[in-house]
Amino acid sequence: MPTRHIVTAYDEQLNVMHNLVREMGRLAAEQIGNAVAAIADRDTDLAAQVMERDGRIDALEQQVEGQVVRLLALRHPKANDLRVVIAGLRIANNLERIGDFAANVAKRSMTLHSQPEVALARSMLPIGQAVAGMLGDVMRAYDTNDADAALAVRRKDADVDRAYTALFRELLTYMMESPARITACTHLLFAAKNLERIGDHATNIAETLCFRVSGQPLDEERAKGDDTATMTVMPD
Amino acid sequence: MPTRHIVTAYDEQLNVMHNLVREMGRLAAEQIGNAVAAIADRDTDLAAQVMERDGRIDALEQQVEGQVVRLLALRHPKANDLRVVIAGLRIANNLERIGDFAANVAKRSMTLHSQPEVALARSMLPIGQAVAGMLGDVMRAYDTNDADAALAVRRKDADVDRAYTALFRELLTYMMESPARITACTHLLFAAKNLERIGDHATNIAETLCFRVSGQPLDEERAKGDDTATMTVMPD
Repeated sequence: MPTRHIVTAYDEQLNVMHNLVREMGRLAAEQIGNAVAAIADRDTDLAAQVMERDGRIDALEQQVEGQVVRLLALRHPKANDLRVVIAGLRIANNLERIGDFAANVAKRSMTLHSQPEVALARSMLPIGQAVAGMLGDVMRAYDTNDADAALAVRRKDADVDRAYTALFRELLTYMMESPARITACTHLLFAAKNLERIGDHATNIAETLCFRVSGQPLDEERAKGDDTATMTVMPD
Repeated sequence: MPTRHIVTAYDEQLNVMHNLVREMGRLAAEQIGNAVAAIADRDTDLAAQVMERDGRIDALEQQVEGQVVRLLALRHPKANDLRVVIAGLRIANNLERIGDFAANVAKRSMTLHSQPEVALARSMLPIGQAVAGMLGDVMRAYDTNDADAALAVRRKDADVDRAYTALFRELLTYMMESPARITACTHLLFAAKNLERIGDHATNIAETLCFRVSGQPLDEERAKGDDTATMTVMPD
């Protein structure tokens, strides 16, 4: 039964890709949680661990790319199979970026350690939990091939954007009260932006899953709540 | 001559992809130049034009993806041909992100218009010119398939990182002198970060071209000069 044999080999190779992507998703969610804990608790050991582990996610992405190239070269998948492979490549790329953002949050938390403590650093925790939750949900939708669950993740991104916008305003206001806070608050602004970008990448993964299911890009416009690029705050 | 006919059709389809990628590169370089001019000259009309034109780059990326899926599904390229197609997809993705960063610089320049003028805004011009130059060079390397030229672009990124780091420090210092400058300088910090990220994406394109030529990922470590995540500045 050569046909059955070929199908099985293809499925096995596809499973190798899926397992690599799942492991990237698991690691990335863990990195987000640890990065925000490091910044909130001023825990430099945990920050160092996050920075060191980022290399694992990068290495996994390289493995996904290698597996995708092998699948395309040897199995030349078509139609639905091809979409599944291309989606795997795109999602791995998004997960690698999420890992970079988490590592950058950890790096900035090390810098904050030498600066006056800013209570707003703890506001990273709920935003971090929200984006790690989006990532967990979208990776479950990856497993179940559930476009509705993916769309639900995409809708949550507007909440993250609003929380980021509120924190951005608070940080600007706090900076205006004392120049000694400017360095710390600047790093918190960039750390918060990184978390907001993680939400965007979880949303990109959700959109890729919808494309994987339907073969069509989404035409429904995404709700956006990040108004920070146009925000102005004036000192009292 | 069916074989020759197939080869020709493949080359034609590949050329469609290349022309779309080239057009994305040309538009992206133009958008960078206009975005930094808008921020330096406080030109809101130019900023609005950059924001409006970003959709063209997004639409071109969708066309590249469609063409890549067609090429993979119908032509199942192998080895070198497959690398060329995968590289096209990756490069289009980088160019789309570059377009987003340029549009965000333009959007922030609109916000700056309501704020006190900050002379440091003009420091965006040389950094913008440097990253637009890197992009122009790497797109020429795309055309000539020149890995050495691509590596030369990659080496220039450290200069951009250093210029960004210097500007970051100047902006923090400037903010500390007066709370009224904090909003404007924060947007300039994020705009400068966007330009630095454009340099990273031009570097990613250079690395993808090296992979396209050799089939191997680069193992030479990239020189990094962006030290802003660990930077601290204290008020006098």
